[in-house]
Amino acid sequence: MNFNKNDANKLLQIIKSRRDVRGNRFTSQAVEEEKLQMILEAAIAAPSVGFSQPWKFVIIKNQQIKDSIYNNFVDENTKAKEIFKDKELYAKLKLEGIKEAPLNIAVLYEETDKEILGMTSMKKMGEYSVVCAIQNMWLMARALNIGLGWVSILNEKKVLASIHAPKNTKLIAYLCLGYVHEFLDTPELQTLEWETKKSIENCSVIL
Amino acid sequence: MNFNKNDANKLLQIIKSRRDVRGNRFTSQAVEEEKLQMILEAAIAAPSVGFSQPWKFVIIKNQQIKDSIYNNFVDENTKAKEIFKDKELYAKLKLEGIKEAPLNIAVLYEETDKEILGMTSMKKMGEYSVVCAIQNMWLMARALNIGLGWVSILNEKKVLASIHAPKNTKLIAYLCLGYVHEFLDTPELQTLEWETKKSIENCSVIL
Repeated sequence: MNFNKNDANKLLQIIKSRRDVRGNRFTSQAVEEEKLQMILEAAIAAPSVGFSQPWKFVIIKNQQIKDSIYNNFVDENTKAKEIFKDKELYAKLKLEGIKEAPLNIAVLYEETDKEILGMTSMKKMGEYSVVCAIQNMWLMARALNIGLGWVSILNEKKVLASIHAPKNTKLIAYLCLGYVHEFLDTPELQTLEWETKKSIENCSVIL
Repeated sequence: MNFNKNDANKLLQIIKSRRDVRGNRFTSQAVEEEKLQMILEAAIAAPSVGFSQPWKFVIIKNQQIKDSIYNNFVDENTKAKEIFKDKELYAKLKLEGIKEAPLNIAVLYEETDKEILGMTSMKKMGEYSVVCAIQNMWLMARALNIGLGWVSILNEKKVLASIHAPKNTKLIAYLCLGYVHEFLDTPELQTLEWETKKSIENCSVIL
């Protein structure tokens, strides 16, 4: 199959308008089952090392589990606030949307003792495959006008315990998903001047 | 900005027709500078933890460097062949396109001593941000009808030495990029029954 210039431009538009969504930017509107399926379809079409597909998606609607993950975030963010105590802005930032988002998805990496093609030299390829699936989900959600936020200020072991994850799994990401009041034009941390945007020239070299 | 149903379907089509491209599936046709720029534009629009943008793209056209990476692959794959000696298929597989692809790109993660927002609890978030950028590149390349292959059977330290990478960098991926004779309809390892395709039901649970 061949794609044309419009297709490529459309993809770039989706990629550029994807945002990390948090807090009350989420609405309570439920995500339709068919849209969740499209997002998961995008996930499992991701590349994976040796076609191992080492991903597991735990879709969380249960309020009690969400509450325990939220408490986990609060504990970890208390430590983070201490680390960033010299930067006043940090404490003002809303860094998750666990309770606001109608859906949470924990994305796990399933370890195996089996040798995996393509993983004999670079051991992290399995985890990286799961991250590729997450990026597919993020773009697919955006194309469906659904917001997604990746919460990383969490204690991994406690998350795994909260969701009763099997022993051979690792947490790669904890995602919040839902419709939004708005998608910001620019990443919030750019607007707030937490970091400046790098250009292609800043981060590439030719050999 | 709102996307419509056609946009979402188009994205899913791009995602599903993305392939890992190897060997003589690449043609020698040069990749136009403007298309490489679009691929890098997609990369730097990826999400990154704390907007840290910890990526570095080393674009390799130099034949001597490609040769040294190719030798690195041959050494590592000799070890891998030993590991998979009970699976006859392994030795027959073409697992890279380093010399055939007109462009190679090493994608690096730049470590820093600075505390990064969102990385205080989960230390791998920086690396994962770089993987998100790689998945954006892969999809953008596919939308431009350009093939991409991720080579992971490499000794990381030797790759970093071959490309004279700064000391604070890690290799996340070594990519081969170029126009192709064809994109396969199905992943090769699926067709060859190395692994079977998982369904959404196989790899998701609802809580």
